[in-house]
Amino acid sequence: MIGGGQLARMMIPAAIELGVDLRVLAEAEGMSAALAADRVGDYTDVETVLAFAREVDVITFDHEHVPQAVLRALVDAGVPVHPGPEPLAVAQDKILMRERLSELGLPVPDWARVETPAELDAFIADHGGAAVVKTPRGGYDGKGVRVVRSAAEVSEWFATIAEGGLAGALLVEELVDFRRELAQLVARRPSGEIAAWPVVETLQVGGVCSEVIAPAPHSAGKVADVSADIAFAVAEGLGVTGVLAVELFETTDDRVLVNELAMRPHNSGHWSMDGSTTGQFEQHLRAVLDLPLGGTGTHADWSVMVNILGGPAEGTLAARYPSALAGHPTVKIHNYGKDPRPGRKVGHVTAVGDDLDDVVYEARAAAAVFQD
Amino acid sequence: MIGGGQLARMMIPAAIELGVDLRVLAEAEGMSAALAADRVGDYTDVETVLAFAREVDVITFDHEHVPQAVLRALVDAGVPVHPGPEPLAVAQDKILMRERLSELGLPVPDWARVETPAELDAFIADHGGAAVVKTPRGGYDGKGVRVVRSAAEVSEWFATIAEGGLAGALLVEELVDFRRELAQLVARRPSGEIAAWPVVETLQVGGVCSEVIAPAPHSAGKVADVSADIAFAVAEGLGVTGVLAVELFETTDDRVLVNELAMRPHNSGHWSMDGSTTGQFEQHLRAVLDLPLGGTGTHADWSVMVNILGGPAEGTLAARYPSALAGHPTVKIHNYGKDPRPGRKVGHVTAVGDDLDDVVYEARAAAAVFQD
Repeated sequence: MIGGGQLARMMIPAAIELGVDLRVLAEAEGMSAALAADRVGDYTDVETVLAFAREVDVITFDHEHVPQAVLRALVDAGVPVHPGPEPLAVAQDKILMRERLSELGLPVPDWARVETPAELDAFIADHGGAAVVKTPRGGYDGKGVRVVRSAAEVSEWFATIAEGGLAGALLVEELVDFRRELAQLVARRPSGEIAAWPVVETLQVGGVCSEVIAPAPHSAGKVADVSADIAFAVAEGLGVTGVLAVELFETTDDRVLVNELAMRPHNSGHWSMDGSTTGQFEQHLRAVLDLPLGGTGTHADWSVMVNILGGPAEGTLAARYPSALAGHPTVKIHNYGKDPRPGRKVGHVTAVGDDLDDVVYEARAAAAVFQD
Repeated sequence: MIGGGQLARMMIPAAIELGVDLRVLAEAEGMSAALAADRVGDYTDVETVLAFAREVDVITFDHEHVPQAVLRALVDAGVPVHPGPEPLAVAQDKILMRERLSELGLPVPDWARVETPAELDAFIADHGGAAVVKTPRGGYDGKGVRVVRSAAEVSEWFATIAEGGLAGALLVEELVDFRRELAQLVARRPSGEIAAWPVVETLQVGGVCSEVIAPAPHSAGKVADVSADIAFAVAEGLGVTGVLAVELFETTDDRVLVNELAMRPHNSGHWSMDGSTTGQFEQHLRAVLDLPLGGTGTHADWSVMVNILGGPAEGTLAARYPSALAGHPTVKIHNYGKDPRPGRKVGHVTAVGDDLDDVVYEARAAAAVFQD
């Protein structure tokens, strides 16, 4: 696995139980997945990644930032890479993503590639006076995304383009009038088998995932079916292998539109570690090793995951365990082994049960113990 | 953790999720828990163990074989040791165990300490012509246990005693007429909190645990209550900290008698990793760190664990994954990372669900894929 963050960390337990020898190429010493960090090195350096790849059977990722040149070098060297360079290119470039989804006939917000402020202002004028502008590359957790009423509000991005940056363009999208955000996770094997978890509802705060309810309330039937159909079409249409997360808008006029794609285990799937027969990390391993996928049924009617964002102002998460564990004995705590820092994802909690109000309350209350 | 076998291995995932820095003193390189093996050394050597202990906050064990002299040296050095030397002494010596359980007024088979063949034959004559003889120390998985009709059948054990071995005596017990074997697991913190999982039924083949059904069928009510009461009394009476497994006989005349004790996570508790809100490895960590204990509810009506004993005659467990995973997508597989060898515990599988017949079938069928 390339990348040593919390996604790599949470892969370790699944690898241990399946008896898979997981090795991680970490960005630095002491990262979340340090226990499995076989080596530390720069994932943008071809030789570093090739040397790492020579010691493993399959390469996968805890992020989508490995450059195409490195991915192509791996493939040229005969290394199985999952997901492969083609689907990852789509995850790496939001404009390419919109193009490919549109070609596949999948429902997306109105969008355009804009190179100039005039083009952006024209799009805004055509779409009710506001729009969402995104840098094509490098955005995450709300970074590189801005809601604007005028091209002047992203003038520095156009300045960067004028200097030859940002791949020469921005993505602009209609401001979708959505009722809520959903996420549909699936896993797909190279040989084609695909499995879906129930569609979930995600709550974002400041562009960062805060809370996930699985399954999404009132989703049984049409919303679930449409969401799964979309994710299957994306996975098959783009040839994604491993876990794919499709972030969706449920609009106020009852449409389901694709917002973003992630080709790896995803925050919106953490609930599955405690709430599903097969957690997303185990399923990702099974998928990238081309092993039969596991059942995606749930342990109870509801699972609610709440992120621990930032953590305590002083001290460690563990210092709060006596209070958190005593008050919430059925909540599962996941500690990423990171130092607390404002806004940083340092852990999450999951509650599982049959009464949604209770489950939401338990998860939120347990997470709150770790925040000031 | 002292000891690097599969119990230490299965502690790693729980430690990762809780953010506990688990370090293992392993007996050798390449053991099941190698990923967390901080060092390799002899657990009977005081200096080796003290050096290891200086780098950790709490010492616990994946077996009960650490000599009392080593345990006492740890305590003298101020190291928290859980479970402590006093309870471990009871787990290490079957005669002392019978003495202490009898003092606590707990139900045990008729037993005696015998030093001579004549004493043994007298016991046999008093108990229907047969008895179970056990060496006080070092037995496990059926080793050091023999059903006899005459002292002549253990003449070599008496010869060892005559040479000054076996601590000078054997334990003899009545041959209990039991309907089935049960196991009651609890966890206890140093500060006293205690939590029990449901009592389970265990099936032994040749003295080795083969299968566990959780909860034990038809145990609701009296059997569950009596079993939990016994385990609470043992844990509190002996001052056990961490997970305690009490192996029990349910007799044909409806009594519940204590057979053996284990003061660590136990094969009869593996089901809890997949079937309970809190698995035994997480609970053991919480207990030895004196953290509040987790809920012990179950995900479904039944969990069935089947050991993979020996594994395939040729090749690895993983070579059977395509068949096992495809045929049993809801069964959880736990691979201990050991080379297959006849009779060796190399892994286990757990099935969870609400129909006992289905769950037993699934677990047995999945385990069978790994055996020839």
